[in-house]
Formats: sequence, structure tokens, C-alpha cells
Amino acid sequence: MNTKKTYAIGVDLGATTVKAGVVTKSGFIPDQLSVDSKAKKGPAVVLQQIIFTIQEIFGKYNPSECLGIGIGTPGVVSITDSTVQHPPNFTDWAKVDVAKQIRNKFKIPVYIENDANCAAIAEARFGAGIEFKDFLFVIWGTGIGGGVILDRKIYRGPYGGAGEIGHVSIDYNGRLCNCGNYGCIESYVGQRYLSQRTKEILLATPKDNIQTKIEKLVDGDLNLLDPEIISQAAEEGDPIAIGVLEEAGTLLGYALSSILNVLDLRVVVIGGGVSAAPAFVYDAIIKSLRSRILKPHKEGVRVIRAKLGNTAGIIGAASLVL
Amino acid sequence: MNTKKTYAIGVDLGATTVKAGVVTKSGFIPDQLSVDSKAKKGPAVVLQQIIFTIQEIFGKYNPSECLGIGIGTPGVVSITDSTVQHPPNFTDWAKVDVAKQIRNKFKIPVYIENDANCAAIAEARFGAGIEFKDFLFVIWGTGIGGGVILDRKIYRGPYGGAGEIGHVSIDYNGRLCNCGNYGCIESYVGQRYLSQRTKEILLATPKDNIQTKIEKLVDGDLNLLDPEIISQAAEEGDPIAIGVLEEAGTLLGYALSSILNVLDLRVVVIGGGVSAAPAFVYDAIIKSLRSRILKPHKEGVRVIRAKLGNTAGIIGAASLVL
Repeated sequence: MNTKKTYAIGVDLGATTVKAGVVTKSGFIPDQLSVDSKAKKGPAVVLQQIIFTIQEIFGKYNPSECLGIGIGTPGVVSITDSTVQHPPNFTDWAKVDVAKQIRNKFKIPVYIENDANCAAIAEARFGAGIEFKDFLFVIWGTGIGGGVILDRKIYRGPYGGAGEIGHVSIDYNGRLCNCGNYGCIESYVGQRYLSQRTKEILLATPKDNIQTKIEKLVDGDLNLLDPEIISQAAEEGDPIAIGVLEEAGTLLGYALSSILNVLDLRVVVIGGGVSAAPAFVYDAIIKSLRSRILKPHKEGVRVIRAKLGNTAGIIGAASLVL
Repeated sequence: MNTKKTYAIGVDLGATTVKAGVVTKSGFIPDQLSVDSKAKKGPAVVLQQIIFTIQEIFGKYNPSECLGIGIGTPGVVSITDSTVQHPPNFTDWAKVDVAKQIRNKFKIPVYIENDANCAAIAEARFGAGIEFKDFLFVIWGTGIGGGVILDRKIYRGPYGGAGEIGHVSIDYNGRLCNCGNYGCIESYVGQRYLSQRTKEILLATPKDNIQTKIEKLVDGDLNLLDPEIISQAAEEGDPIAIGVLEEAGTLLGYALSSILNVLDLRVVVIGGGVSAAPAFVYDAIIKSLRSRILKPHKEGVRVIRAKLGNTAGIIGAASLVL
């Protein structure tokens, strides 16, 4: 088959699943699979899971036609030795040379990069960022991650740890973040917090035996709340859901204004699970960003939705090879 | 004279004065002068003042031995056409092509760069940053400016406006900044605010007819307060002066942690008028920075004092040529 002639494998390692896909030079994914990453069982087991996905692909696609393997991973990927350091939610993982071990196993080129950076690269090459030379990519999901695209390339920073925009503090006396800092934007707009905040407001709202739209969507079980449901309720006009998402967008805009002032960027591309939120959330982000950014930086400021959805990780990882 | 054989002219344009110096290849300044910049009289007059300083130098040093002229200026220097846009505190100045006009006048190479970037370049080549490939330069004076040095070069950003670290907000509900944003670090630790805050505390402190050290230094006239006097009082053990400076250092550290998380830098070099503050202020900065920065970024974090003082602007401007 023609599409098989030159392909790369993109591996998207997450704390829950390993996703791997066959990726063509035009960024198309003819085939992909997903397995449990077994992150709590230590690096050796995780590596075995990655190897399994690649072997599955090589069972169907000719290994000699594979250009190489790209891996996207949480944590910091060291700029000096490409080791993966301290990925959050992975047990017993200080520093592991994932790329080297996969290379030793399959004897083909293996490249590795931080997962947010991979998604940024994918959007730059094949997605919403294709028309922009420079932009800030935001992953808005459980946490907030980022990737800085400068002159169509990822800015990795001197140590490989650049773009940690989730840990820009918007209030030095604010909420305690998992990272130990106070007021990190992640602790205000991350997925878990959005659900928790919605729940709190619902519980504090006087009951008159009428379920709100959002309560109907979860059949009264507020532990089922997630950003998708909150977004759906907002689309249906639920004022609490609208309020929570609008507030989150406004706060995210505040953080973005500080970041763009430092980096001199004008375009923000938002991906990740929460990026599917309704258009009014984007309006809130851009409104607060434009109200706070320095005047000389204001011209041309745009906030747009990513295009590749949850395939960005696989495509970006494969792009390291392509 | 040997030092004359190859020299550049560095011009440091400020809202108060134009400083110009003869700068040798080793970053030495054998001669310099300073005139009123007449910033309130419009661009034509300011340009005339710059031309005057250069003519003064050419009266003493052979123009044919001059390699070129470098100019450091407030405001954004456009990356596309090198015009100087909206320098704060300059009257009737939207967009002026300073470099072109000086080039037309003297028929030698003229380069122009933002003043904070010039000072960062000077510290990178000849000052405190000489041993660091990558660092954040901070100008701590009336305002807070910054320059990002990556791989020994200045990061100008896609539009020439990078490094505006003074407008990183540490509190989205905080103090109103001159720029229109709330909580900008500049509005908490800028020179004017430090004096104002010291004055407020002194006025609110119960009097028992004993002058504090700081009041003695200004002979009771609190309008004379400035960071130099506050620093001197702190050195002499004045608790109010110590408190104000320590708080400023702590808040600056908070802002720096957000910035270093995004840029992946480990070294901060602080210049500008307030950088002469006592060592305990640096201790406060580094303590708060280390307490807030992401763990993977913490190793090797350093905050050091700039070395070139107020000659950094002239040297950095000349470095554009050298």
C-alpha cells in the first residue's frame, strides 16, 4: 500500500493509557491502538506496554518501511541526555532513558519529547497553528500545559523544561497548587477544579425541588460532573455552568496576558479536553486577555481552538521523526 | 591612540538624559557625555540631542575610526522596520525611525535596540552574565524591565517586544498598574512605589518624637525618600527600611518563579537603580523564588547582581556594533 511506504510511529504516553499510531507524512493516522500504561507499576512495566504497542503495529505494518518512532511523554525530557524526568502520576520514576531502551529493542531511530510540546508541534505542522509562525499552545485538561512555537519550531528551553504555563501564578496569596506554589492558573481552571467548583455552587444554591439542567445531565450525582457535561449544560443555557466556564476563561486570559507580555506572542491555540468548551468561553478568554495585555502587544491578539483533538499527541510524536 | 583605532559609539536614550560613550572592543569606555534628552519637546528635538552627543564625540575621536553607532531606547523597537514605538514618557512619539535618521546624518552603520535588551546584552558580554549561556536580565528601577538571553543572544520575540517582565501580574485583583493591568510586579516593587510605601509606613507608625534612621537621612522630609536612601537606612539597621525592601524582594521572587517556569531559565541577573540594594534583598528574592518555582526547575537557581551599573546601557548599545 502506498501509505505504508514511508510512515512513522507516534507514541503518546499518558498516566492512564499508551496510545500509538501509524502516521503518514501528511499527518494522517491510518491505524492506532491504545493500552493501559500501568503507570503505577514502575518504569519497566510501562516500557513493556510501549513496546507492546509498537510490536502490534509491526505485526501489521512492515518495520523496514518505518522511518522511526517518536514518543511524547509527561515530565521533563532532558535536553542533554533525553531522559524522562519525574513524570507526574508515574510511580518510582525519577529518570529513565526511554528513547534508548526503545531504540535498543527495535534498532530504528527513536525521538522523545514532552507531550505538551508534541501536541504543539502537531498543531503547528498539521493543525490550527499552520498559518502562524509563532504561537503559544495551551493544553487545557486535568492540568494546564503549554508549548511555545517560535519560528515554526518548539522552544524547549535550555534544560528542556520550557512552557510550564500552568504554573504561572495569578495570585501570590491564592489557591495552593499541587506543585507547592500558590495561585497557579492550573489550580483555578484545571479540569478537576472546574468540576469541584460547579459542585460547590450547586450545593450552595437554594433548592426548590427543581433540578438544574446540569443536575439532570448527571441524574443528580454531582460526582459525575466533568467539563464535557458542564459544557453541554452551558450550551443548553444552564446559568451555573455558564458562570463557571466564563470565570475560568476570564482567569485563563489573565494568566495568558502575563505570558504573552514576556514572550511577545500574539496567537494562542488551545487544545486539551476542556478546549471543546463553547465559543463563549473563548470570548471570555480573549476579552480578559485583551483587557490586560500591554498596549503595544494588543494588536492582532487571537485565541483559537486546536484542530487535532486527542490525536495531536500521536501526530506530534510522529512529527519528531517525519 | 591604540584604543581609538576601532571603537563604537553607544547611545543610551532615556526620558531624562541622552548618554553617549566611546566604547572599545573590550567594553571599556574611555570617554562619555550626557545631555538633557528633552523628551517632552517631541521627536525632532530628541533626535537633535542624540546628534549633538555624537558630534561632540566626533569632535574628539576620528569618525573614520568609528565602527558604527548603537542606540538603546525605551519603547518597542520593531523587528520589521527598526522604528521606535511608543517610548513611555516621550511626548508626541508614536513611531519614529531613529536609526535611519542618524544613519542619514553620519553615513555610518547605525543599530538600535530596546534599552533593557541593551543592558542585558552588555551584562552577557562583559558583565555578570558572562559565564551563563542563558539568563533572565531584570532592570529594577522606576519600572521593571527585562531581557531574555538565550544561547548568549537576546531573545527579541517575533515583534521585538519580548521580556516585558514588569507586567507579569502577581495578583489579578491587585494594584492598578500604569499599563492598565492589575497586580503587575512593577506596581509593587518599582522605585516610586518603594518610596511611597516607606512613606506610608513611616506616617502610620506612632511617633514618640524619636526620628527613625531613615527620617534622619532625609532630615524629616519624606518626599526625599528614594531606594538609595532606603537601602542606606536598611544597611544601618532601620527596621522599616529592611521590611520594605525584604517585602519587595519576596514579591519580585514570586513573579520570577512564574517567568522561569515558562522560560526554563535558572539564572537571574538584576541591574537598574534598585539593584544596589543590600545583600539581604537578594536573599529574600532567592528564598521566595526557590519556594515557588517548579521542582524540576529548582536545581541551580541563582539570583545575582549586575556588574556594569549605569554604563550597561552605553556598553550594550555599542555591542550592537562591536
